[in-house]
Amino acid sequence: MSRLMGQMMQMPLMISSLLVHAARHNGDVEIVSKRVEGDVHRYTYRDAELRARKLAQALQRLGCEPGDRVGTLAWNGYRHFEIYYGSSGSGLVCHTVNPRLFPEQIAWIINDAEDRVLCFDLTFLPLVEKLAPLLKTVQHFVLMTDRAHMPAHSPLALQCYDELVESEDGRYEWPEFDENTASSICYTSGTTGHPKGAVYSHRSSVLHAYAAALPDAMDCSGRDVILPVVPMFHVNAWGLPYSVPLVGAKLVMPGPHLDGKSLYELFESEKVSFSAGVPTVWLGLITYMKQNRLQFSTFKRTVIGGSACPPAMIRTLEDEFAVSVIHAWGMTELSPLGTLSKLKGKHDQLSVEDQRRLLEKQGRVIYGIDMKITGNDGETPLPWDGQAAGDLLVRGHWVIRSYFKRPESPLQQGWFPTGDVATIDADGFMQITDRSKDVIKSGGEWISSIDLENIAMAHPAVHEAAAIACKHPKWDERPLLVVVRKPGQTPSKEDILGFYEGKIAKWQIPDDVVFVDEIPHTATGKIQKLKLRELFAHHVLPAA
Amino acid sequence: MSRLMGQMMQMPLMISSLLVHAARHNGDVEIVSKRVEGDVHRYTYRDAELRARKLAQALQRLGCEPGDRVGTLAWNGYRHFEIYYGSSGSGLVCHTVNPRLFPEQIAWIINDAEDRVLCFDLTFLPLVEKLAPLLKTVQHFVLMTDRAHMPAHSPLALQCYDELVESEDGRYEWPEFDENTASSICYTSGTTGHPKGAVYSHRSSVLHAYAAALPDAMDCSGRDVILPVVPMFHVNAWGLPYSVPLVGAKLVMPGPHLDGKSLYELFESEKVSFSAGVPTVWLGLITYMKQNRLQFSTFKRTVIGGSACPPAMIRTLEDEFAVSVIHAWGMTELSPLGTLSKLKGKHDQLSVEDQRRLLEKQGRVIYGIDMKITGNDGETPLPWDGQAAGDLLVRGHWVIRSYFKRPESPLQQGWFPTGDVATIDADGFMQITDRSKDVIKSGGEWISSIDLENIAMAHPAVHEAAAIACKHPKWDERPLLVVVRKPGQTPSKEDILGFYEGKIAKWQIPDDVVFVDEIPHTATGKIQKLKLRELFAHHVLPAA
Repeated sequence: MSRLMGQMMQMPLMISSLLVHAARHNGDVEIVSKRVEGDVHRYTYRDAELRARKLAQALQRLGCEPGDRVGTLAWNGYRHFEIYYGSSGSGLVCHTVNPRLFPEQIAWIINDAEDRVLCFDLTFLPLVEKLAPLLKTVQHFVLMTDRAHMPAHSPLALQCYDELVESEDGRYEWPEFDENTASSICYTSGTTGHPKGAVYSHRSSVLHAYAAALPDAMDCSGRDVILPVVPMFHVNAWGLPYSVPLVGAKLVMPGPHLDGKSLYELFESEKVSFSAGVPTVWLGLITYMKQNRLQFSTFKRTVIGGSACPPAMIRTLEDEFAVSVIHAWGMTELSPLGTLSKLKGKHDQLSVEDQRRLLEKQGRVIYGIDMKITGNDGETPLPWDGQAAGDLLVRGHWVIRSYFKRPESPLQQGWFPTGDVATIDADGFMQITDRSKDVIKSGGEWISSIDLENIAMAHPAVHEAAAIACKHPKWDERPLLVVVRKPGQTPSKEDILGFYEGKIAKWQIPDDVVFVDEIPHTATGKIQKLKLRELFAHHVLPAA
Repeated sequence: MSRLMGQMMQMPLMISSLLVHAARHNGDVEIVSKRVEGDVHRYTYRDAELRARKLAQALQRLGCEPGDRVGTLAWNGYRHFEIYYGSSGSGLVCHTVNPRLFPEQIAWIINDAEDRVLCFDLTFLPLVEKLAPLLKTVQHFVLMTDRAHMPAHSPLALQCYDELVESEDGRYEWPEFDENTASSICYTSGTTGHPKGAVYSHRSSVLHAYAAALPDAMDCSGRDVILPVVPMFHVNAWGLPYSVPLVGAKLVMPGPHLDGKSLYELFESEKVSFSAGVPTVWLGLITYMKQNRLQFSTFKRTVIGGSACPPAMIRTLEDEFAVSVIHAWGMTELSPLGTLSKLKGKHDQLSVEDQRRLLEKQGRVIYGIDMKITGNDGETPLPWDGQAAGDLLVRGHWVIRSYFKRPESPLQQGWFPTGDVATIDADGFMQITDRSKDVIKSGGEWISSIDLENIAMAHPAVHEAAAIACKHPKWDERPLLVVVRKPGQTPSKEDILGFYEGKIAKWQIPDDVVFVDEIPHTATGKIQKLKLRELFAHHVLPAA
């Protein structure tokens, strides 16, 4: 039996259409960028769209063919924005590389993605010059600057980005093609094994852009001035380079200047209303503002994600700086938005304190994403009672089904296992309790390493803490706490363990504490728990 | 050269997924309906999703096959909502029929759509009993009520909606199929010729639902309580039955009770925050509230569209009742949202009065829709200067490309001609100046019949006015004003024409005024200008 088909216009969901929309309907709205060169650059969506078309022509002239990857090592700025659209819009694939990774990892990623062109900011010229001999596929090295800032000599046959763009005439029509075509690639920086590439499509990116702008997500409108602090090499700056043109908001790009002073001045001078970034950036901003007794004039709300935001930071931003914090959760494999913490109508009845506790969770899914938690077997669904913690799985329009060049499917019955352990409450508010490989399995019960660390971090003499599982003959695993003391402080093991009393169940308190000078971190600042577990594999826990 | 494909999950955009999302993530949020039966019905998204599944089973049991049309003659209520999802969600096509049309038109439309099942509220039983002999394809007449309200006898083999639903077990999984499958049909009630059906798809409806909820559109969130006054038989209540579950807001359905008192009491008792409807409904509400010196407790904003909203009504709602008005434009062929009037960041600098004048326009497009205005030739683009008025054309994901069963394409080079004449300003704010067939073409210049009517309507002795074109030997056409006087008032032609002085250019002032007892209207309340032009085809204009 044949179904009746709709009789609506058929047009693919194209990334180029986001910028075309902005240029046509918000043509004079500004994109303001702090440049690596030191100055501030201003132009409009109309200018950006024309330059993106010229860039598409230039990439074609360089020999790029549909599907070719264009790599970037760049800060948030207008040229990076042009590359997003000039590459994806013309059927190429934008591959943003995280310059904070170890150089060998960067080379490995560029080779794995087979980038044909590599575009990079002046900052990264020394890095690229060093890496170039390792890069097997890159045919064109494009320095993202103008003629005046090109180096006098370089071992590389450098091309000048501005010259490439300006030598084209812009007579280019954005092509329409299958919306499931790849638009961009981001690599996850896993703590083990090689990084893996998530390959986004035009369709997934446009749907994500719609959802991300919704009132219960980032709530973006044409009245906003939006500054993405989150880098464009971190999962496409959480989709803001797509959602901001979609709503026609003014876009402010901080370049490499992410210190508290630079950010504060830019927030004020450009009248920023909304931002998004990881917790550490806000720490720098808060510190600077407290030291100088400053307040924001226009900045009203921010999304914080990337890693769990400490409740104390949320309260400081809200109570001392009148900035509402939207706690969010996502991952590279989710483009990245999964959940955001926004109240429902029913929560108006809660006390402010109860509302805050709710908003400290990672929040609820936006339409387009679904989630569930399962028991150890990976199948049995767990209740949504805010108590039961299990493996978090997701599915939706902007979730990967496989990794670049990896034939094996990571999915479990169509769901993507996030590797996170979480609770979900009756209202659909999800809270991450741990990474599944970090959870401590004691006698069939799970102990959250994050909970143990958060308590230890609140101890006045603790600089950093990590909780890991140690093998135990009776309980399978028991928690061991690894602590770096603050300079000049010498808390004892008993001091630390006593600090847990009354804060969690007795059986969850670590069995032992070891003091170290340093805890190992990954290039992106995450604690290397695997390494810690190796280091303390033979640690003997005291008898209970 | 083969492109690189994205590696994202592939799932079609299905209407059923909107309700499944609401049931999973906002399961206890209420749907409250005032019933034809007289009482108030309450249940939750979780209940609605289960009942929609049971309805899908029941429709299958009645013999419906994919693509079959399910007609409705019904008010806004939970059963109508269930039919939206139970039919579309299971691969059938929901066909909402406007019960306010003339009975012969209703029969014609149901026959043209070939509805296999017809579901209707108690209100419409007499109508359906009368029409039944004319209906060639309807096999099942389903009365949307419970057993207790079924009539003792009827010439029709009536089935009871609640019994059909309750006899199923709900063990039904929503199918996934091609997202371009038809989901629903709405007929346009043109002023000439037979009505024509717009055939929406799952894809177009879901994309429209995302866009409609954006901050610069209807701005819907999970904190809202939303009451669609616009009927579900008017272009799917402007998409609210899709956008409201998408965001998980509480949904309040007014049933047949659209008078000022009923609406006001429902707004207050259910704490409605947002609504949408045509200007006439708000007129009734405002009148009732003024008479009784009432204010809203929770109602904060409304979308007004369907026909141009008089500026005076916008000001009354804002100044006297603290309700922000979002003026909007759309049409059946656009699902229906095209533009909404929302300020941009740059407009913060305008005076309140200038902001208001801007917001009186129909506004700017949401991403997903594009528009343009052209000259008389239908091709030459006109400037976006807020002055040049031309034919308005649109394109986008939720615009039709053809009508049901009509092989001919209405498109012009891929754009849909709206039949409206409009200006667009430099910021993309569109303002309708006329219907293209009603514009008066005088010496190569266009005169807006709407402008002429708005001025006449402001005259204290005028009850209703219509401006039409009269043939003229020198100027091709000149305006004639047709006026119905207020009871007891006897303004002269000179009174009326004198009222125009200083309000528009002299050459735009009508050449003549005729007084009539009544102006002919269509079933949906629009002035029948075609009929007026026929009536006054031989009217002799006075010499200039």
